[in-house]
Amino acid sequence: MTITLYHCGSARSFRPLWALEEMQLPYELKLLPFPPRVHAKEYFEINPLGTIPTLLDNGIRMTESSAICQYVVTKYGPTPLAVSVDEKDYGPFLNWLHHGEATLTFPQTLVLRYSKLEPPERRNAQVVEDYTRWFYGRLKLLNEKLGSGAEFVCADRFTAADISVAYALMLAERLGISGEFPPAVADYWARMKTRDGFKRAIAAQGGERDVGAR
Amino acid sequence: MTITLYHCGSARSFRPLWALEEMQLPYELKLLPFPPRVHAKEYFEINPLGTIPTLLDNGIRMTESSAICQYVVTKYGPTPLAVSVDEKDYGPFLNWLHHGEATLTFPQTLVLRYSKLEPPERRNAQVVEDYTRWFYGRLKLLNEKLGSGAEFVCADRFTAADISVAYALMLAERLGISGEFPPAVADYWARMKTRDGFKRAIAAQGGERDVGAR
Repeated sequence: MTITLYHCGSARSFRPLWALEEMQLPYELKLLPFPPRVHAKEYFEINPLGTIPTLLDNGIRMTESSAICQYVVTKYGPTPLAVSVDEKDYGPFLNWLHHGEATLTFPQTLVLRYSKLEPPERRNAQVVEDYTRWFYGRLKLLNEKLGSGAEFVCADRFTAADISVAYALMLAERLGISGEFPPAVADYWARMKTRDGFKRAIAAQGGERDVGAR
Repeated sequence: MTITLYHCGSARSFRPLWALEEMQLPYELKLLPFPPRVHAKEYFEINPLGTIPTLLDNGIRMTESSAICQYVVTKYGPTPLAVSVDEKDYGPFLNWLHHGEATLTFPQTLVLRYSKLEPPERRNAQVVEDYTRWFYGRLKLLNEKLGSGAEFVCADRFTAADISVAYALMLAERLGISGEFPPAVADYWARMKTRDGFKRAIAAQGGERDVGAR
């Protein structure tokens, strides 16, 4: 066993956890209290940013959750979870991998920070509202794809790109801003949660956990 | 010629422009006024989010700048700008591609928004300060890598991952928050700007341009 994953309950590191469980690869899971930069200071020796995830594998270190998903499915394949360069949807596969994090998850971290993590005097209702609206606006491409009848974001099958995107929906649910998902997006998220790999990942972290909870 | 790139001066879409110029691929450049969602409403028909970049190629559409860099160097190689799955630094390559955008660029968009783009009554000095500090804190992994004497972020050569990361430094310079770059980061950014491919990309957009300028 060479893969080690550092994870906090329901945080971004759920993506690589889910990918590892879909692939049924052996790995060692290190569950940390949130945020580790406060409650597990020794973690700075593993990752100087103190962010999660960190994945260690054969002397390399990775810290970006969607990059790790692509790594796992391409390094430890062949698997239908990867879309190869020769497939028509190779470009969309890469795009959704990034889109799930950079476009759909980051705005939510503003909501989390300024509604929950900051001390009350530093919370900011304007920013929370700005980025809740921003997040909803950013769902347009996903809704366009799923509203056309697609079951998955690309390649007509479940891939690592679905893990990247669906985690953003999981985070929204945890933050309480999933109530206005367009129907096609809500249906997609409901389908994703029924996957055995998803359920195994939830079990591996000890059940459903709130983001930001210790 | 099949590749079309929609771009605004010095915005994130500079990444794919730079990658195309490094590869010396033929492409059609569509320069838009910033932000296109206000000044080029017809662009919503190309990209419902109104964000840039959009890359069109052979019936596919991509909207994530770092994903496009990976796409271009893997689809239109072989080129040393890609790191293959068999190389030791394949994982770090994917990680830096994502890190440049998700970790190093997004915080700066908060600085841009709440210091320049919002009308004065909605600007927010606290958020600007929070995310300027956040950005500096997030430079630790890059500084650790470059401070160890590395010339590039991975694989001991210039790759698409350098384009992803170096654009974040370009944006910081444009936003006026590059003054406190650690020396190794400042030196790296100075080296990146001397590349012929970088200079061709600057020329292609009509010279150095301010982000957010029309």
